[in-house]
Amino acid sequence: MTDPATGLPRRVRVVGTGLVGTSVGLGLSRLGVDVTLDDPSPSASALARDLGAGRLAGPGESPPDLVVVAAPPDVVAGVVRRELTACPAAVVTDVASVKSVVLRDLAASGVDLRRYVGGHPLAGRERSGPVAARVDLFDGRPWVLTPAPETDPAAVALVRSVASALGASVSTMAAAEHDEAVAVVSHVPQVAASLVAARLREVPEHAVALAGQGLRDVTRIAASDPGLWTQILAGNAPAVSRTLHALRRDLDAVLGAVDALAADAEPQGAPGARAAVAGLFAEGNEGQARIPGKHGTAPTAYAHVPVLVPDRPGELARLLQDVGRAGVNLEDLRLEHSQGRPMAVAEIAVVPAAAATLVAALTRHGWTVHA
Amino acid sequence: MTDPATGLPRRVRVVGTGLVGTSVGLGLSRLGVDVTLDDPSPSASALARDLGAGRLAGPGESPPDLVVVAAPPDVVAGVVRRELTACPAAVVTDVASVKSVVLRDLAASGVDLRRYVGGHPLAGRERSGPVAARVDLFDGRPWVLTPAPETDPAAVALVRSVASALGASVSTMAAAEHDEAVAVVSHVPQVAASLVAARLREVPEHAVALAGQGLRDVTRIAASDPGLWTQILAGNAPAVSRTLHALRRDLDAVLGAVDALAADAEPQGAPGARAAVAGLFAEGNEGQARIPGKHGTAPTAYAHVPVLVPDRPGELARLLQDVGRAGVNLEDLRLEHSQGRPMAVAEIAVVPAAAATLVAALTRHGWTVHA
Repeated sequence: MTDPATGLPRRVRVVGTGLVGTSVGLGLSRLGVDVTLDDPSPSASALARDLGAGRLAGPGESPPDLVVVAAPPDVVAGVVRRELTACPAAVVTDVASVKSVVLRDLAASGVDLRRYVGGHPLAGRERSGPVAARVDLFDGRPWVLTPAPETDPAAVALVRSVASALGASVSTMAAAEHDEAVAVVSHVPQVAASLVAARLREVPEHAVALAGQGLRDVTRIAASDPGLWTQILAGNAPAVSRTLHALRRDLDAVLGAVDALAADAEPQGAPGARAAVAGLFAEGNEGQARIPGKHGTAPTAYAHVPVLVPDRPGELARLLQDVGRAGVNLEDLRLEHSQGRPMAVAEIAVVPAAAATLVAALTRHGWTVHA
Repeated sequence: MTDPATGLPRRVRVVGTGLVGTSVGLGLSRLGVDVTLDDPSPSASALARDLGAGRLAGPGESPPDLVVVAAPPDVVAGVVRRELTACPAAVVTDVASVKSVVLRDLAASGVDLRRYVGGHPLAGRERSGPVAARVDLFDGRPWVLTPAPETDPAAVALVRSVASALGASVSTMAAAEHDEAVAVVSHVPQVAASLVAARLREVPEHAVALAGQGLRDVTRIAASDPGLWTQILAGNAPAVSRTLHALRRDLDAVLGAVDALAADAEPQGAPGARAAVAGLFAEGNEGQARIPGKHGTAPTAYAHVPVLVPDRPGELARLLQDVGRAGVNLEDLRLEHSQGRPMAVAEIAVVPAAAATLVAALTRHGWTVHA
């Protein structure tokens, strides 16, 4: 049953209180939904309860209107099936990062798919567990629903109301389409980050000391949980395989070119090899430019105003206060820390028309600006 | 001649007024050094002059004490040779990202290597040209010197004094050692970022719409200049080839495992393949953990305090002012923009002991904190 005042289900059962399940519980509890929590690990569900994600499911519980299965990819199909059987009036959704394999397993098991709505909130982090949960984890993030042909449209509408209420941008696509997309925008980037980071294991200390912001950015997600990511890759193996093979074809082309350049004694030799290398970098430019900017809009070419900030409490605050006083809206901010000296460069991104105003105002306030 | 008051050369000639050459000129001019600027493009050197990087070299110029060759990798050896001949009393250094090939070309040309000091400030950006230059570009960044066995120690000391005065952390290593290191920490990450970004060219719009912060980070440097990077890869082809082949061996292992998983109908099948995938992710964890943290110190596990920030002028300033008032030092800051809604999450990194104080203080000031 939905609450006519909110359009949300009255009672939601969350199965699995890790990062995503706990965040769902936090968000729905704050919206007044009665959330019950369940997890194979009693300490995990107790922690989620203590964080405010809901109450522990007790015996003789009223049946839920919606079950959110936030279990690891490997077990999600089994848990969904169990919940569909145990809660014969409830809609059941899941949040696994892979969708076709879950749907296939459920279809093979013969369960009634009318009440099942596949879902995937794209809100992962390199940290996991209930402690990493946030009430706003889904805020502005994509949440893909992948209904099967058999799924009841009312069930889809119920899950959509929950995802929207949690702040997500909800879209609908076929499970296979979803899996192809995340292979390219999430799973293969994860593999690439790990491949680059793995190369750092055996280099001497003086080599890692040369690491800059580029390397840091490329490898940040290589800190993610190997167990979870193994399940994700295993669950999306066909799509990941296609994208990885395509990436390897590009890699082989570059590698062939680099080998030709290495073998060529002439500094300006192997012009075909140079063209191949330049081609990859140009393709990278092109692909990178397709990534949407802030707030899902097309990427904007912001002006970047770099300002020196001493590494002391309050300095960055003082800077941004001066930015605010200049009447300029800060579009983005990147801190680049210098190594070995206690200061940082704050790169303030603003719309190009505002850059001159900002530079003048900050200089007047005594900041060292280089724009 | 060095200035006994500063220990710096009195007259420095900068050849090539792109990002690095102009930044050298800006920094040395501010330190009172007489800097002359030269570039094959008169508009580039004029722009560098207008930015304050020095004055244009004129006829009948007094000979420089130091020449800094900041030319593209492809032409650097030729320019160094020309300058060694034209300025028979000067020390000549360069700033190319590749070192062995330059040294090899110079040695083959028979020039006097005593006055040549190979150098590489690791201060690249995804933007280039004199406009992107900054007086503090080298502040706290590594600057590697790669003297040849023939190089005069006094010449090395002179270049070291300049790099140090510009704020860099100077180290010395053999050219080959340098090239192996940057292949791993810079050149191969650049290739990997481009390979991942290139995959985005042909995916449908709904797929790139699912891009998250992970993809953005992995592909940021894929926006770099293809021409420059082609020269860098060509100039370091042997070391890049070795590292790329090692990366491809890892990729092939993962690809074989993913293919086995794709072929296996059993959800829990192919246990060997799962172990191979998990192994790569674990190696990625291990390598990523070796990257030094802020200020070149060992990586610290900071606590991350996420705070909701409305996307309005002055809000971030107000937040950081409150952080400063709490007496807490902000170690790092990452802004995550929500998509589709005008707000951001500011993730404030602090030493773990300070997290509770910060959360309490910010909550008291009315911020929505999720920690």
